Amino acid sequence: MAPHAVVLLSGGMDSATALAIAKSEGFDVIALTIDYGQRHKKETEAAKHVAEHFRVKDHRIVHLDLTEIGGSALTDRRIPVPEQRRLEEIGQGIPATYVPARNTIFLSYALGLAEATGAKALYIAANQVDYSGYPDCRPEFYKAFQEVARLGTKRGVEGDVIEIRTPLISMSKADIVRKGDELGVPWKLTWSCYKGGAKACGVCDSCQLRLKGFREAGVKDPLPYETRTVN
Amino acid sequence: MAPHAVVLLSGGMDSATALAIAKSEGFDVIALTIDYGQRHKKETEAAKHVAEHFRVKDHRIVHLDLTEIGGSALTDRRIPVPEQRRLEEIGQGIPATYVPARNTIFLSYALGLAEATGAKALYIAANQVDYSGYPDCRPEFYKAFQEVARLGTKRGVEGDVIEIRTPLISMSKADIVRKGDELGVPWKLTWSCYKGGAKACGVCDSCQLRLKGFREAGVKDPLPYETRTVN
Repeated sequence: MAPHAVVLLSGGMDSATALAIAKSEGFDVIALTIDYGQRHKKETEAAKHVAEHFRVKDHRIVHLDLTEIGGSALTDRRIPVPEQRRLEEIGQGIPATYVPARNTIFLSYALGLAEATGAKALYIAANQVDYSGYPDCRPEFYKAFQEVARLGTKRGVEGDVIEIRTPLISMSKADIVRKGDELGVPWKLTWSCYKGGAKACGVCDSCQLRLKGFREAGVKDPLPYETRTVN
Repeated sequence: MAPHAVVLLSGGMDSATALAIAKSEGFDVIALTIDYGQRHKKETEAAKHVAEHFRVKDHRIVHLDLTEIGGSALTDRRIPVPEQRRLEEIGQGIPATYVPARNTIFLSYALGLAEATGAKALYIAANQVDYSGYPDCRPEFYKAFQEVARLGTKRGVEGDVIEIRTPLISMSKADIVRKGDELGVPWKLTWSCYKGGAKACGVCDSCQLRLKGFREAGVKDPLPYETRTVN
């Protein structure tokens, strides 16, 4: 029986690629999708389709309410999602879509699931290149969390440390598109837009970065968009 | 206006004492109670009463389902809660009541709340002395988590690090009883038993350690017990 890994799967292009990488590295996958009270359900639906496509061993969808924490455009409807920012702006500062401690919370939950199911590794699609504004997307954060995994679990104490893997951390969006394409990621099943419309909006930070990545990689993004202008 | 701290409040004697310490150290308190699918609701009720007693600024009760993770006697009804173990046994190995990565998950959520509300510190009633079997109750784990708090939050990146405080970490249960007594902790409102009966069982690990602490401190525990034998 192949060893297995827990993969945090949001339904976006990055986590779908992380899942494909985990499989290419020889793991069976338990996909973990966290429904945290974000603005729409399209991401969770996308995660289901991506997990089915890759025939994961198991797909857990967990409700974990972060609206009680608030403080982010993704969990508090009173805070608007930024739109039509220029790409130079997107890379600067910490955006309104930052959810306080979100990746720490997701990783912790995934760590518990990894420990309870005997997973060898935990994959998260964090990426520091295009989105350097998020503090919890930097390699030093994952190094610190690896220590938490070693010291804070029964398995870690017994010397069987769950590896935290961040295969996308230093890739550009174009690199991710190229890698995902090579591994057969079904782009049409993924969803990156911060809004939950019938088509992707094309103007939120996430859509703009996605479109830029596909354009730079010379790959066609099969998703329908309201508008495809990259500022 | 006094600065505030987030205090993880389970409803047990330890977290009630941690709350009293946070107040004695000059903080207004936002109490955070996490209902994680444990066997009974008595702890959450106790937390409400303790929070009211101490007139906290806010008390957030969050549902965060850990039964999906499983692997513990506290979240999986198929695994029995250990009973009538000798005290020497209780300190050995990692008990069946260990919930994979529980303290990491709780701390992460509390960290998000601390960041979003502008808290200066985060208190958790971890204690390594009587329960050395839990990996996530050791000082080195909290040191590692402090790094996660520094590197994984917007506030940390800006140099305004949220302090992780573990005031009980090196206290014996008797020390905790003495400290709590000094600070006016209402013991009769707290609940430590792993079972949810009308009276505390007196035979689970948690009851035995509590009874031993009170006996050694020379303080009467006002809770009703089914039996008060300490093995």
